[in-house]
Amino acid sequence: MTPDEARARFAASRVARLATAGPHLVPICFAVDGDTVWSAVDDKPKRTRALQRLRNVEADPRVALLADHYDDADWSRLWWVRADGTARVVGDAPPAVDLLVARYPQYAEQRPQGPLLAVTVTRWSGWSAS
Amino acid sequence: MTPDEARARFAASRVARLATAGPHLVPICFAVDGDTVWSAVDDKPKRTRALQRLRNVEADPRVALLADHYDDADWSRLWWVRADGTARVVGDAPPAVDLLVARYPQYAEQRPQGPLLAVTVTRWSGWSAS
Repeated sequence: MTPDEARARFAASRVARLATAGPHLVPICFAVDGDTVWSAVDDKPKRTRALQRLRNVEADPRVALLADHYDDADWSRLWWVRADGTARVVGDAPPAVDLLVARYPQYAEQRPQGPLLAVTVTRWSGWSAS
Repeated sequence: MTPDEARARFAASRVARLATAGPHLVPICFAVDGDTVWSAVDDKPKRTRALQRLRNVEADPRVALLADHYDDADWSRLWWVRADGTARVVGDAPPAVDLLVARYPQYAEQRPQGPLLAVTVTRWSGWSAS
């Protein structure tokens, strides 16, 4: 799979998984802008985990993101795409929040507050069974 | 979510994501036996990635596994469960392969060959929106 195709499939996915140092692993909603993947970390019930994520990134900025498609009935339809890069915590970035709000109606109802995670992707890769 | 509930939800999931040192991230099919998560790494088209996974585990056995449920229309249905632990590469383990074959018809058609990854889980955790 070419990097452009991997990026397109990733950008169209609704959920991804974020791996940070540790390794620590959590699902995220996100928006892609060029080679940057934005996600919000304000969700109240997730406060503890959000802080863990931010601490991990500050200690070691290397991250991996994965979006995949699983089909129990037909393994020829399996695919996954991965974004490797470095993350930074951003206090606020209204244009990025606008991207998140545009993708997820839930964010339109309650606009994300607080810090964002910005992942600068250095490598897009992927695999498809067919 | 209690560790027992997290383990039960994880064990019932069809796909999980495995994070190894790096971090490196890949989806896996698996079977849970007590506090051990078994997966096969023989898939031919995935040979390069499989080797990467094995090298990572040998260099640093710490891993995290995540299974999650995403529902675009109803975020009150979201949940995820995580298994943190240490992984080892096992040359062969017929009872574990039997577990994989019992879960996935595709493995019954073509029984996994080659090494297995065995993750000894030291912590089951999870989160549910409702």
